[in-house]
Amino acid sequence: MSTNLKTKFEYYKNLTNTNLENFFNELNYPQIISSGMKYSVLNGGKRLRPFLLLATLEMLNIDIKKGIPSACAIELIHSYSLVHDDLPALDNDDLRRGKLTTHKKYGEANGILIGDALLTHAFYLLSEKNLNILSADKIVKIISLTSKYAGINGMIGGQTIDIESENKQIDLPTLQYIHTHKTGKMILLPIEIAIIIANLDDVKSNVLKEYAEIIGLTFQIKDDILDIEGEIDKIGKPIGSDLELNKSTYPSIFGLEKTKEILQEKTKEAKELLLNTFGETSKILIELADFIANRDN
Amino acid sequence: MSTNLKTKFEYYKNLTNTNLENFFNELNYPQIISSGMKYSVLNGGKRLRPFLLLATLEMLNIDIKKGIPSACAIELIHSYSLVHDDLPALDNDDLRRGKLTTHKKYGEANGILIGDALLTHAFYLLSEKNLNILSADKIVKIISLTSKYAGINGMIGGQTIDIESENKQIDLPTLQYIHTHKTGKMILLPIEIAIIIANLDDVKSNVLKEYAEIIGLTFQIKDDILDIEGEIDKIGKPIGSDLELNKSTYPSIFGLEKTKEILQEKTKEAKELLLNTFGETSKILIELADFIANRDN
Repeated sequence: MSTNLKTKFEYYKNLTNTNLENFFNELNYPQIISSGMKYSVLNGGKRLRPFLLLATLEMLNIDIKKGIPSACAIELIHSYSLVHDDLPALDNDDLRRGKLTTHKKYGEANGILIGDALLTHAFYLLSEKNLNILSADKIVKIISLTSKYAGINGMIGGQTIDIESENKQIDLPTLQYIHTHKTGKMILLPIEIAIIIANLDDVKSNVLKEYAEIIGLTFQIKDDILDIEGEIDKIGKPIGSDLELNKSTYPSIFGLEKTKEILQEKTKEAKELLLNTFGETSKILIELADFIANRDN
Repeated sequence: MSTNLKTKFEYYKNLTNTNLENFFNELNYPQIISSGMKYSVLNGGKRLRPFLLLATLEMLNIDIKKGIPSACAIELIHSYSLVHDDLPALDNDDLRRGKLTTHKKYGEANGILIGDALLTHAFYLLSEKNLNILSADKIVKIISLTSKYAGINGMIGGQTIDIESENKQIDLPTLQYIHTHKTGKMILLPIEIAIIIANLDDVKSNVLKEYAEIIGLTFQIKDDILDIEGEIDKIGKPIGSDLELNKSTYPSIFGLEKTKEILQEKTKEAKELLLNTFGETSKILIELADFIANRDN
C-alpha cells in the first residue's frame, strides 16, 4: 500500500471508529446487547466500505461529514452479517480476527439478538443521524437502496445461494450471482450513497458504479486466491477453507493462473475507467483498486 | 367480539394481507428466502398492529391507504421477531399456530436468514413503498421511530431482558421493562405512525400514546392470564409454559385475582381516555380495548 493510500485509510478509519464509538455511547441497556454490538463492530476492521464512501465524496469535492452516519450504518450492517454468518447453524466459526466470535463470547441467543440489533440500529443511524446533514429526500433514497442491497435482492440473497452451493458443482452464472450479491452489493452501496449525496450526473454515476462493481469482483477473486496461497497469520483464517467446504470459486473454475490474469485485467479496467472520467482526482480510488488486487490479507 | 369490531378486523386484515401478498409477489430469488418470508408472515395472524394503525387513521379521518406500507412493514418486523424467537438458541419452538416454525420447515440457517430478510425488507417497504404516499419528512420520522422501537431501545431490549430473567425472581420494574419493551413498543409504534401521518396535535397525540401504552400492557397481562387459564386448542400453545420457564408475570407477582382487577381497571382507564378526547369517533378503539381484556386466545 502506498504511503498516500495508507494515510487515507488510517484517516477515514479513525474518523469512522470515533463516530461509531460516539453512536455506541448513546446505548446502554441491556448492557449485554450494547456491549456485544461494540464488540462486534469495533474489532479492528479495515473499514473498506466507509473508505469507499468517504473517498468518493472527497473526490467529488463534497464535505465528507455528510457521509459519516451512512458510513457507520454500512459498518453496522457489514458487522451484523458477519455475526450471523459465524453462528453454529451457518459457518460455525469460533474465531474472527483471532478473537472469539460474538456468539462464542456472548452466547448463541445473544449472538442472534446482537446481530438483529446491529441491523436495526443501522436504519436508526441512516434516519435519525442524517436528519440535520442531508435532505429528507436523499435520506429516503439512501435507506431504500440500503435495504435493497442488504436484503433478499442483495447480500442475503448471495449468502443464501452461497450456502446452497456448498459441496456442489456450480456454474459460472451462479458463482457470479454469489459474488455480485454476497459481497458486491455492499461494496457498491457506499459508492452509490456518495453518488446520491453528491447529486452526481448519470454519466459520471455510471462510471463510478462500474468501478464499484469491478472492485467488488476483484475483492472476491483476490479472497479466493488468498484462500489458496495466503499465509495463515496474515489472513487470519485457515488456508483452504473454501476447498474444505467444496466451494466453487474462480480458481476452481478457471484455474489459479487464469484467475490471476482475470484479476489483473479487471483491475486495469477499473483504473482506466476512473482515470478517463475523473482524471487525477481519482488517484486514491485508483490506488485502492491496485491495493485490492495485490493485498496479502 | 362485537359484530362491528369483527367486521373491522376482517376488513383491515384482508387489506393488509392483500398488500403483503402484492409486496411478496415482487420477490422471487432465492426462492427459499422469498417462500420462507411468505410462510412466516402469511400465517393467519390477527394483524393487531395493522388494525391499530388503520383504525387510528380512520378515526382521525385520514385515508387509510396512507398507512398500508407502514402497516405491512410492522407485520414483517413482528414476524421476523417471532421467527428468531422460535430458533433453538432462543425459545426452541417447533410449532406456531399449529404449523411448523420457520426454521423447522426451512432449516435453521435459512430460518436466521429469512428473519434477517424480513427485518431488512420492512425498511424497504417503509422507504420505497411510502414514496408516493407520504412526504419524505414523514417517511424519515417513521423510519427513525420504527428502528428505535424495534431495536435495542425497544423490542430487542425487552426480549433480551426476558431471556435473562428466566428462572429468576425479578422485581416489578424489571417485569414492566420487559412488558413495555418486548411487546409494548411494537403496539405503540402503529399508533405513533398514525399520529405522524395525520400530523396530530400534541394533546391528542399524548392521549393516543397513553391509550397505546395501556393496551400494550393489558395485552401482555391477558396473555399471562391465558397462560394459566386458557384452553390449549384456543391459544395454540401449551398452557403453563411461563410457569415451566419460571417466568415472572403479573399473576406470579400479584396473584391471579388481583391481576384480573388490574386488567379491568387499566382497560377502563384506556377507554375513558379515548372517550373524553375523541368521543364517539373512538368507538372501534374502545371496543378493541375490551376485546384485548376479554379474548380467549
